[in-house]
Amino acid sequence: MKKYTVGLIRVLTIQDEELLNLHGKLIEKAFPELKVISRCIEDQPKGIYDEKTEEEAKPKILRLAKEFENEGVDAIIISCAADPAVEEARKLVSVPVIGAGSSASALALAYARKIGVLNLTEETPRVIKEVLGDKLIAEDHPEGVSNTLDLMTDWGRKEAINAARRLKEKGVEAIVLGCTGMSTIMIAPILEKEVGIPVIDPVIAAGAVTLHALRRLDVWGDVR
Amino acid sequence: MKKYTVGLIRVLTIQDEELLNLHGKLIEKAFPELKVISRCIEDQPKGIYDEKTEEEAKPKILRLAKEFENEGVDAIIISCAADPAVEEARKLVSVPVIGAGSSASALALAYARKIGVLNLTEETPRVIKEVLGDKLIAEDHPEGVSNTLDLMTDWGRKEAINAARRLKEKGVEAIVLGCTGMSTIMIAPILEKEVGIPVIDPVIAAGAVTLHALRRLDVWGDVR
Repeated sequence: MKKYTVGLIRVLTIQDEELLNLHGKLIEKAFPELKVISRCIEDQPKGIYDEKTEEEAKPKILRLAKEFENEGVDAIIISCAADPAVEEARKLVSVPVIGAGSSASALALAYARKIGVLNLTEETPRVIKEVLGDKLIAEDHPEGVSNTLDLMTDWGRKEAINAARRLKEKGVEAIVLGCTGMSTIMIAPILEKEVGIPVIDPVIAAGAVTLHALRRLDVWGDVR
Repeated sequence: MKKYTVGLIRVLTIQDEELLNLHGKLIEKAFPELKVISRCIEDQPKGIYDEKTEEEAKPKILRLAKEFENEGVDAIIISCAADPAVEEARKLVSVPVIGAGSSASALALAYARKIGVLNLTEETPRVIKEVLGDKLIAEDHPEGVSNTLDLMTDWGRKEAINAARRLKEKGVEAIVLGCTGMSTIMIAPILEKEVGIPVIDPVIAAGAVTLHALRRLDVWGDVR
């Protein structure tokens, strides 16, 4: 089976190789059809957490996207639930550009029409609100948690489960995770087991959309 | 690589084996990870074309879904852009149930925020309107075309291209095909080549969502 090469952009500065590659490895595990090369933006160890840091990150993301395209990747994933610079990158490069936030919220709509978003701390990313529209019926986050490290503790995980339960009590039929930090700690299956409705991981979702983006073009090869 | 078995339900009565299996073959070509078994509902050679025929079809679709589940399929696709009986089937069986209409409209949102729907003749299916919400900015159909046979003629294809162009002129950034009859005649790549924006085929989209539905559960195997 044909393997595709995907450039994955982490929107925070990561020195540790293993951590840098974690989202890519997750995608390769779910979709062995994809070979993922991960790179991160420079000089932003805290990543994107407000409009100012998003604006700072955008040119760096676009530079990496151009670099990946020049090296011949088949597609580019911007591995952040806020889809930073996704629209700009689509204008800049000719390969498919996939955002983790739009992928997760879009795929959730293929499973249900009443969607909840579970955020880490901050608000629901704008792109997720836009994609879900009036199908976004509830938003929540784990109480007292301020970063993914908190979520890895016993109490943090418990608060995340509580938040997911509150979403379900409000009638939500599928949950979108509003931060790829939750992919890093692989909390989706834990939450799904507890609440019994689909919990959509943004990194896995980006992998699925990437495979669709590539295969949907290849399948017609002899028709076009 | 693990292969999954998928039961695919055609919502019209088809005697011809090749025609019956066509959607399944398309999915297998795009996603060789999926092995598709196709079956069709009985006594509805004209399929679903209004509320009455949809109501007639629903119990037949649900019977096939239950039959597929009993035979141990990993997922079920209802291969119609109107998602007939998809919600009911989800309550009836425990494997993922994927609708072609919700899949196509959901995936379109992963690529763009201004979506157009290209229908065969009839109105845009309700499920597509619901999923797209205010991102549905234009609907159109080929003039003078009343079925997929018309679309296979030179003039029919030309009218479909004209309709796709009109959608693009209205600012649409991705097009959802509003009928799986357009998958049968494989018109997506022709339209995409002409208008230069993604044209989302509902059958291929259903395959992509099915693979996501299955892999997203399998990937966590050792975490859960």
